[in-house]
Amino acid sequence: MSRLNIRKIRESDLQKGFLESLDSLRRASNLNRRRAKAILRNIASSKNHVIFVAEQDGVIVGSTTLLIEQKFIHGGGKVGHIEDVVVSRGVQGAGIGQKMVRFALRYAKSRGCYKTILDCDDKVKPFYTKIGFKAHSNGMRYDH
Amino acid sequence: MSRLNIRKIRESDLQKGFLESLDSLRRASNLNRRRAKAILRNIASSKNHVIFVAEQDGVIVGSTTLLIEQKFIHGGGKVGHIEDVVVSRGVQGAGIGQKMVRFALRYAKSRGCYKTILDCDDKVKPFYTKIGFKAHSNGMRYDH
Repeated sequence: MSRLNIRKIRESDLQKGFLESLDSLRRASNLNRRRAKAILRNIASSKNHVIFVAEQDGVIVGSTTLLIEQKFIHGGGKVGHIEDVVVSRGVQGAGIGQKMVRFALRYAKSRGCYKTILDCDDKVKPFYTKIGFKAHSNGMRYDH
Repeated sequence: MSRLNIRKIRESDLQKGFLESLDSLRRASNLNRRRAKAILRNIASSKNHVIFVAEQDGVIVGSTTLLIEQKFIHGGGKVGHIEDVVVSRGVQGAGIGQKMVRFALRYAKSRGCYKTILDCDDKVKPFYTKIGFKAHSNGMRYDH
């Protein structure tokens, strides 16, 4: 069985299929490589915006994003926000998504988050419930 | 009628009732002032974490937070996240909350966000619907 490695993103992952793995969420592989590199450097400059990737046999097969928000309430506590949990189409159903989310949760806890939140569609709600998430509010969206 | 001024937070707002205004959301005014200043400086060091305050007669009577998230999808687009919309108890019902949210939305648009999202309880859903938000997903929470 091929080994799965979940870790923070590196710039070299742009050559290992990171953008292509996002395509199963929404087309990203057509993004100009120079622009993608600039975006990644911009993200990497913040310690509160972390992208995790899942690497299998030298290829990026999934990723997720964690935003860490410092609050004043809760004694100056922190809240994690999970975004864009994505697994490449060919390897879905093998537990990679769940492993990435659990990895992000452990990281959020290690950074002092008292809770981690996310928004999801009805059809993936059971996926998150199994991990330990509870429905608690309405996700609202405003289109600019 | 007293003039309402909505703007980005400044360090001097810690002496103008900023933490006390958060109390109507969740107790924050008991936060150590040195710690509050450190948190604010930490937040201010990121251009993607913006706190807006509403000032009336020299007192902070409300605030809200906007996180700006750079994505790879959507052609490298940005998403705004609104958090902690709070208005001091004594001045609720005067439209301050709505003005702050609209201010944050205009700012998010000016920074290139294609959408802005937030989570809310059922009871304040009509407040956001009136502003133009649409229900689109489930807000899930994991407690560490």
